[in-house]
Amino acid sequence: MHYETLFQEIHSELQSVEDPGQVGDYIPELAHVNPDQFGVHLTTVGGEEFAFGDAEKRFSIQSIAKVFTFVLAYSRIKSSIWERTGLEPAGTPFNSLVQLEYDRGIPRNPFINAGAIVICDILASELASPKENILSFIHRITGTDSIDYNSKVALSEKKTGYRNYALVNLMKSFANIKNDIDRVMDIYFHICSIEMSCKELCRSFLFLANNGIVPFSGEQILTASRTKRVNALMQTCGFYDEAGEFTFKVGLPGKSGVGGGIVAVHPEKYTIAVWSPRLNKKGNSFKGMLFLEELTSRTSSSIF
Amino acid sequence: MHYETLFQEIHSELQSVEDPGQVGDYIPELAHVNPDQFGVHLTTVGGEEFAFGDAEKRFSIQSIAKVFTFVLAYSRIKSSIWERTGLEPAGTPFNSLVQLEYDRGIPRNPFINAGAIVICDILASELASPKENILSFIHRITGTDSIDYNSKVALSEKKTGYRNYALVNLMKSFANIKNDIDRVMDIYFHICSIEMSCKELCRSFLFLANNGIVPFSGEQILTASRTKRVNALMQTCGFYDEAGEFTFKVGLPGKSGVGGGIVAVHPEKYTIAVWSPRLNKKGNSFKGMLFLEELTSRTSSSIF
Amino acid sequence: MHYETLFQEIHSELQSVEDPGQVGDYIPELAHVNPDQFGVHLTTVGGEEFAFGDAEKRFSIQSIAKVFTFVLAYSRIKSSIWERTGLEPAGTPFNSLVQLEYDRGIPRNPFINAGAIVICDILASELASPKENILSFIHRITGTDSIDYNSKVALSEKKTGYRNYALVNLMKSFANIKNDIDRVMDIYFHICSIEMSCKELCRSFLFLANNGIVPFSGEQILTASRTKRVNALMQTCGFYDEAGEFTFKVGLPGKSGVGGGIVAVHPEKYTIAVWSPRLNKKGNSFKGMLFLEELTSRTSSSIF
Amino acid sequence: MHYETLFQEIHSELQSVEDPGQVGDYIPELAHVNPDQFGVHLTTVGGEEFAFGDAEKRFSIQSIAKVFTFVLAYSRIKSSIWERTGLEPAGTPFNSLVQLEYDRGIPRNPFINAGAIVICDILASELASPKENILSFIHRITGTDSIDYNSKVALSEKKTGYRNYALVNLMKSFANIKNDIDRVMDIYFHICSIEMSCKELCRSFLFLANNGIVPFSGEQILTASRTKRVNALMQTCGFYDEAGEFTFKVGLPGKSGVGGGIVAVHPEKYTIAVWSPRLNKKGNSFKGMLFLEELTSRTSSSIF
Repeated sequence: MHYETLFQEIHSELQSVEDPGQVGDYIPELAHVNPDQFGVHLTTVGGEEFAFGDAEKRFSIQSIAKVFTFVLAYSRIKSSIWERTGLEPAGTPFNSLVQLEYDRGIPRNPFINAGAIVICDILASELASPKENILSFIHRITGTDSIDYNSKVALSEKKTGYRNYALVNLMKSFANIKNDIDRVMDIYFHICSIEMSCKELCRSFLFLANNGIVPFSGEQILTASRTKRVNALMQTCGFYDEAGEFTFKVGLPGKSGVGGGIVAVHPEKYTIAVWSPRLNKKGNSFKGMLFLEELTSRTSSSIF
Repeated sequence: MHYETLFQEIHSELQSVEDPGQVGDYIPELAHVNPDQFGVHLTTVGGEEFAFGDAEKRFSIQSIAKVFTFVLAYSRIKSSIWERTGLEPAGTPFNSLVQLEYDRGIPRNPFINAGAIVICDILASELASPKENILSFIHRITGTDSIDYNSKVALSEKKTGYRNYALVNLMKSFANIKNDIDRVMDIYFHICSIEMSCKELCRSFLFLANNGIVPFSGEQILTASRTKRVNALMQTCGFYDEAGEFTFKVGLPGKSGVGGGIVAVHPEKYTIAVWSPRLNKKGNSFKGMLFLEELTSRTSSSIF
Repeated sequence: MHYETLFQEIHSELQSVEDPGQVGDYIPELAHVNPDQFGVHLTTVGGEEFAFGDAEKRFSIQSIAKVFTFVLAYSRIKSSIWERTGLEPAGTPFNSLVQLEYDRGIPRNPFINAGAIVICDILASELASPKENILSFIHRITGTDSIDYNSKVALSEKKTGYRNYALVNLMKSFANIKNDIDRVMDIYFHICSIEMSCKELCRSFLFLANNGIVPFSGEQILTASRTKRVNALMQTCGFYDEAGEFTFKVGLPGKSGVGGGIVAVHPEKYTIAVWSPRLNKKGNSFKGMLFLEELTSRTSSSIF
Repeated sequence: MHYETLFQEIHSELQSVEDPGQVGDYIPELAHVNPDQFGVHLTTVGGEEFAFGDAEKRFSIQSIAKVFTFVLAYSRIKSSIWERTGLEPAGTPFNSLVQLEYDRGIPRNPFINAGAIVICDILASELASPKENILSFIHRITGTDSIDYNSKVALSEKKTGYRNYALVNLMKSFANIKNDIDRVMDIYFHICSIEMSCKELCRSFLFLANNGIVPFSGEQILTASRTKRVNALMQTCGFYDEAGEFTFKVGLPGKSGVGGGIVAVHPEKYTIAVWSPRLNKKGNSFKGMLFLEELTSRTSSSIF
């Protein structure tokens, strides 16, 4: 398929759509990003690559990193992970705290903030040098050693992360955090600060489209069955309070971040990453979602 | 594939799993069903049929009927349906009323009770004889004229349906119910009382696996694009508070009912219906979910 | 004390305070009231009376009537009343339904709508002709036979009372309503429609300032101990979500209604009623609260 | 009145009431208190004192100290205090976090934990040496210099105070905490650790029964009008989720602590403090509440 022509075509049509979104602004590093940048990249399991725009420019992947830490924990820990976090969609944001309280400190799923913090706590217990180990895992599945934390972003997140501290303290009061809070949060704020390009995101997620095997290295990250389950989890929980809408309109499992990135997986076929910094009210890239909706509609490539 | 052998095999293995579930007992008609019945049926888009156990015995399909009324409304109404109901998973049940209040009478999705009641209200405005029209729609997509409401069940539901009356009154206080409450609830309680067999459920859902076209009649119920969206909606919202778990373990879009039935769709391939009356704590068939998990695991037929 | 001079003085000063409030408008009968009417009346336990403005004009007492039905139930039922309703302040209004659900159908107190409906249910079981009996009780404690329901108001309330129907159905689903819903709601909507003047309200509440005895007839309605408890309950629960503020600023137990009336009790001394139809955001008379705050401040007559 | 005889009499009768309560056990220092201790003390505004049992033994006053910090802030800060905290009862405990979130970081009142933390934040901005200044204020109103923090208790509270850290971080995320979190929490945990006897509590609260003037020193702490308002606030908010019940049964404004102490105020007449370490399910002294209910019933000394 001539994906690049299609990318151009959709991008050009979306030019006329007014973008009501705004860049994430709770930390200066996100607020200062040029909001008009746009990149998209598609990589097939066979190794073909299709790019458009700022596809090789790195940006803050933010919550997309929660997939990496979850996969790392899921590949090492057996069933006990589901005693520490649920796997259901989160419901409206106004519930976040009351739900965590109602469920006695067990987050709804590993992709909301509370759940990702629990996964960091699990990795803090499991890994010798969590931050280094996480990074080297990402290097391995991406085939690129230069991907790194942005420590300035991590520090900014930490300085303004009172709500996340509220979550971790509440979970600790229910004994669902085992390690020292500062140690856990240091990991959490670092993973959110990772910077990658659309091209790199496509490569890093490719094992999820390929039954758990990294195509270019042959390394088996997860069994085929577990790989399907990670995709399923992204489908129901990957888009904050908009998982239903993304599933309805785009029809692929994926994960978004407040840096404006979205990565989606078409099992057995390809991964696609899009980046457009302006966010809709629910914190997902406004043009990114629209672009993916158009793309899967025109190519009839929803999984449903 | 030798599905029938596989059905036998899985059923036989599940015999040794203790079923901690209980039949739905809030109305006498459900409570008196023999809980040990078990049926499964699979129909391919090409017309092949595979059956096991009580696959042709009719039971109360309950919430599964919400897919029929939603499709009927969705096929006639254009975009305005999404001003009346959302399309996001519902979150924990303890939220049901507060969420409806927080969202000013707009239900989270059309498959929870509140949302299905709104759909009944839309059909009450849209159709000349709603109850007759709904039934004849089901006859058409199933190819069977004998499917009917069980008026005794409908009456039992009505007599004990105080919680549903609380929902409809709350929505009416927010002006999200347009017709007379009793008229809307009469439709709602009747659709929940419909009785079908696994075999009939498979046939009735087949257009959802076939790009919106009923294979045996050629009738186009929905466009291919809208069909994918109905499947997507079932994936995120079809299993009460267990949509995440069903997606994670089974990996197919589907819908369950408190009568113990579950029907699932493998797009482009088949529909499958299973019936086992004992329910888990979240109101889904305990053995039905387990059976489907085993089936999609062994055949690697999850969509993810 | 020269109360009438004080009434004039405070009223005159309050003229210059802009009243941001609006008359209750959810039923036409309240919306059409002249909002500039103002009346105040004070009656001492010794029988002295002080009036100002529209003190003898009848208006819709609305929720103030909940005190009458509660006292009637409390005087006849022994302890079991507290198995059917709590006696704690209600918290923010956004909780009303979730709290009722959390507490499994037991309202927080008998002065919120849900609690007053439970009291009507108790009276429906307890009294031969509830509506007649309630009215004759009010006649007895007021010494005036002409007080009556306004059936037009009751009908309007019933026609728009979807939220109240949501409450009663939710409670019925938890088995905390014993009688037929329509019968209970008929009593409830009628008591809200009662019309009385400030002068009549003062007389009717006088037994609460007089150890339970109606001064002009000598009839003992409640024991002294129970009388104190009714006053205590009004203090913590008499002003919707503004009980804390009323207690803080006025310092007397009392009860308000959306018709713009407030009645307050100074134990052993007097009752006072004020009427000004414009309501603040929490549904209490804006000028009425201000007037009482000024009055108790200048006379140092808070009970605290 | 022969209070001491009455104390003996009530205490003796309560011996036969089984105490289902348990001592607060979330920190070792509270868990190790001998639960059978019991003390009561009453001091009149005229200076008469009546004691029974362990009335001079010091215990951990815990939340009772919130009255001292509130009065100190209220006596120095003018109206702006009510922009930082509300003055309404808190509703059920299951709301604590969601309500704080719904109200955008503004606690319901200054006597719940979140509100008392805000008051500590105000004092951290207002006072040169908050911990010393608070202590010397208590010395002045009690006339006793030996009252002190128990730093072991403060440290224990800090070590296990994850839930309080969740509250303060949530409020900080809404900008309702101005100072460094650790500094604010250091004050908060210290005030909860103060130890006083029933006799000392009676003396320290006496200005609240005496129009704001400390009787033995003549110092005016608050105006008469503000004093009434503090009492009013204790009435509606002084007993966690049991303010309604305490008001209903005892009929005096007061404040309790999880150390098993309760102090109550009869305006113009006396203060009374009771101590019994076993707590009911809502965190108030079981026998303490019962004792005060009996006392005010037999002496008809409720304020209502």
